[in-house]
Amino acid sequence: MSFREHLEEICKVEGAVAASVMGYDGIAIETITAQPSSHDVETLMVEYSGLMGQVRQAADLLQSGPLSEVSIGTEQLMTHLRPINSDYFLVLAMTPDGNTGKGRFLLRVAAPKLEREL
Amino acid sequence: MSFREHLEEICKVEGAVAASVMGYDGIAIETITAQPSSHDVETLMVEYSGLMGQVRQAADLLQSGPLSEVSIGTEQLMTHLRPINSDYFLVLAMTPDGNTGKGRFLLRVAAPKLEREL
Repeated sequence: MSFREHLEEICKVEGAVAASVMGYDGIAIETITAQPSSHDVETLMVEYSGLMGQVRQAADLLQSGPLSEVSIGTEQLMTHLRPINSDYFLVLAMTPDGNTGKGRFLLRVAAPKLEREL
Repeated sequence: MSFREHLEEICKVEGAVAASVMGYDGIAIETITAQPSSHDVETLMVEYSGLMGQVRQAADLLQSGPLSEVSIGTEQLMTHLRPINSDYFLVLAMTPDGNTGKGRFLLRVAAPKLEREL
């Protein structure tokens, strides 16, 4: 399966806005837009990628084990992020009324598959 | 209800490790420890408080509405953070097998109550 196909699979969840495979450097390998959004979702993902790097460093520093997931909810957008390996992570932006549990589940399932393909 | 009582209420959730009312400056007003942990949970909360400030700034910048919640999961600890007002936020650290949904719910219920008392 291509990156795009994995992301399309993830974007089937109710409320999906966009999904992406991104590097910790903020550069996306592949992005899928599931529905039009008034938000600058790509810029948001880049902003959050910087935060992911910092969260990972904090987790390392505190020896609480490798980072497994981060969720950031604002009034208008719920974003889930999940590391794939030490260089890349998955992002899924959703509407706040979307199926959060399923979105997180789909990222958890896709991450190890993508890891094998990267 | 005192801050301590609110935090005790939150710490009733299965898997709770510690809960705190913290300032964005990283200084805790009140912290409750629900179970012994091998992690330096207080340091972790301080580290995450810095990240909360940055996430809030990113959300503001991107006009995706006010920040409502952040969850950070590592292999050994799941931490939920929820803003109370512009100066303070709630933190709940849990074991990864704890009742995440209920933990997030208890923070959502407690935050407006604490806002009125701050």
